Amino acid sequence: MQLATLPESPDELRSLIRRGELVRPTSGMAPGRVQANLAIMPMDMAFDFLLFCQRNPKPCPLLEVVEAGQTEPQYFAPGADLRTDAALYRVYQHGEMVSEVEDLAEFWRDDLVSFLLGCSFSFESALIRAGIRMRHMERDTNVPMFITNIATTPAGAFSGPMVVSMRPIPQEQVVRAVQVTTRFPAVHGAPVHIGNPAAIGITDITKPDFGEPVAFEEGEVPVFWACGVTPQAVAMSAKPPLMITHAPGHMFITNRKDEDLAVL
Amino acid sequence: MQLATLPESPDELRSLIRRGELVRPTSGMAPGRVQANLAIMPMDMAFDFLLFCQRNPKPCPLLEVVEAGQTEPQYFAPGADLRTDAALYRVYQHGEMVSEVEDLAEFWRDDLVSFLLGCSFSFESALIRAGIRMRHMERDTNVPMFITNIATTPAGAFSGPMVVSMRPIPQEQVVRAVQVTTRFPAVHGAPVHIGNPAAIGITDITKPDFGEPVAFEEGEVPVFWACGVTPQAVAMSAKPPLMITHAPGHMFITNRKDEDLAVL
Repeated sequence: MQLATLPESPDELRSLIRRGELVRPTSGMAPGRVQANLAIMPMDMAFDFLLFCQRNPKPCPLLEVVEAGQTEPQYFAPGADLRTDAALYRVYQHGEMVSEVEDLAEFWRDDLVSFLLGCSFSFESALIRAGIRMRHMERDTNVPMFITNIATTPAGAFSGPMVVSMRPIPQEQVVRAVQVTTRFPAVHGAPVHIGNPAAIGITDITKPDFGEPVAFEEGEVPVFWACGVTPQAVAMSAKPPLMITHAPGHMFITNRKDEDLAVL
Repeated sequence: MQLATLPESPDELRSLIRRGELVRPTSGMAPGRVQANLAIMPMDMAFDFLLFCQRNPKPCPLLEVVEAGQTEPQYFAPGADLRTDAALYRVYQHGEMVSEVEDLAEFWRDDLVSFLLGCSFSFESALIRAGIRMRHMERDTNVPMFITNIATTPAGAFSGPMVVSMRPIPQEQVVRAVQVTTRFPAVHGAPVHIGNPAAIGITDITKPDFGEPVAFEEGEVPVFWACGVTPQAVAMSAKPPLMITHAPGHMFITNRKDEDLAVL
């Protein structure tokens, strides 16, 4: 199926995904709906991870926590099943990826707590509506991401540097980009830095740690937003016995509208 | 000591409080600094309470969580001690108040987790700076608070109705009041309702459930904000074996500035 012929309803998209008929990155699907990062872990780590998110709301904007023994995100996606409704999952044991699977039947346990975290798709839609172009989307590449020298605030076993995504923004649109994304703290919110990569520990803007580089045009400024890769990187470095995430780009599609997350 | 002769420094105020030399409501102290509601409970309830706060950010705006075995709120009040630095505490067992004490020496346990929650003092200061008068402060009474028919989103044993505080606002300042408080989601944020008490289950605006009634002047509208009494009421109704709070009005004074909590 072409993207253009896919259903727009989140419920129908998740049905296709659940039946294994739509295993691919979800960028562009269900326009205007919130897509979420997934982090699933045993209950005995969940308090510390929840606290880590509370202490680091920019990189870890928590949308919903699905408690141990439950599989339905009742606030963001009533009727959905977290074990089947992301297109592709990654399973990690002690920080090492052991499997990439289309459903979690083999790995699910009743003590798993699931965290849905905000994703940059939502604020990118808002930027595009404001007339700000997204270079990496025009080039159909992954956004460039960098490990910074900005420390997250630790909680229990969780600590590490903040990861940011970078978008080149024309100088005259930088203020607008701040204003537009400030409205959406639940999906990373306002930028964490504008203009000087070295100030946040980035030595070469052409060599991202994740994703692909993008070229700058005349008069463009690098603008950095906190990135949802942060909690995953931090969780991995804690080497938990078991941790499950979505595969990169294969987000969990929710029913909620991006605009419902706006604070003003 | 008169309020006018008290030190303005949060550290000095907490020193006086710690020595038992300042046992009284903290309204007006340390102008411009954040004052916090306290909720202290055993670790085995802390995940559910943290989740309750995450699900109900308007009534339960979480400022900081101090983990089990620790007594220093290192982000909001470095050097402070939660066992001694609120002027007056209330200790509850199974939902019943068993003691009102000036320090927690007798009750402290190493499994206690402490939650600092935002308080209306911060957004009231912002309203006053915007030229909006606070009737209850002019009358030197407690703000009127009402139990509503708005359900909080449950988490574990925690559930119950939202409690709101009410302030009469001149019709022509209502929009400004929304704008000003929208800047401060960490201290209850924008109103939850404007204008019609019955719509949120309040049958008699002259008979608050807590605090004291205030009179309306010509052209004034009742405006309702989520209230920090909510998490305490909800926690009490779960009848935990042990729960400790500050005594009403005797807030925990932090070092952080109200303005640092503004999101824009």
